Amino acid sequence: MPSELECAMESLITMFHRYAGKDTNTLSRRELRELMENELSTFLKEDPAAVDKIMKDLDTERKDVLDFDMFLSLLARFLMANN
Amino acid sequence: MPSELECAMESLITMFHRYAGKDTNTLSRRELRELMENELSTFLKEDPAAVDKIMKDLDTERKDVLDFDMFLSLLARFLMANN
Repeated sequence: MPSELECAMESLITMFHRYAGKDTNTLSRRELRELMENELSTFLKEDPAAVDKIMKDLDTERKDVLDFDMFLSLLARFLMANN
Repeated sequence: MPSELECAMESLITMFHRYAGKDTNTLSRRELRELMENELSTFLKEDPAAVDKIMKDLDTERKDVLDFDMFLSLLARFLMANN
């Protein structure tokens, strides 16, 4: 049986792929907005421009997508802010 | 009600503090071993020397402890390896 930590990590992976969809391994701007509206709505209400800011900050390759590594950086920011 | 992603992130924060204990905001080598034995046992079985390797890699300030940011780097490695 997976541990609590393994379950939490599994959730993060599942979450990313749920919104990234089957066709790619990245989150488009629209998919990131959808993820935030459903999963981080509180944060989005506080800062409606958050999606654009996040893309500007983390989309370092300027492809208008976030890969899994960038998604983890995003989560790390939330975690550091809420720890 | 917190979303699935918020619950998963909350778990990571709770997990860190469960093993870091009330006295500090860091994981000692012993606390990291305890966390891995309980929460990442599969990984530890594959590599019994993992704790020392992780400390060597991530304990960049050479205080023989991991802070929350280093802990997130550790989880990111597991996540990237398992994505």
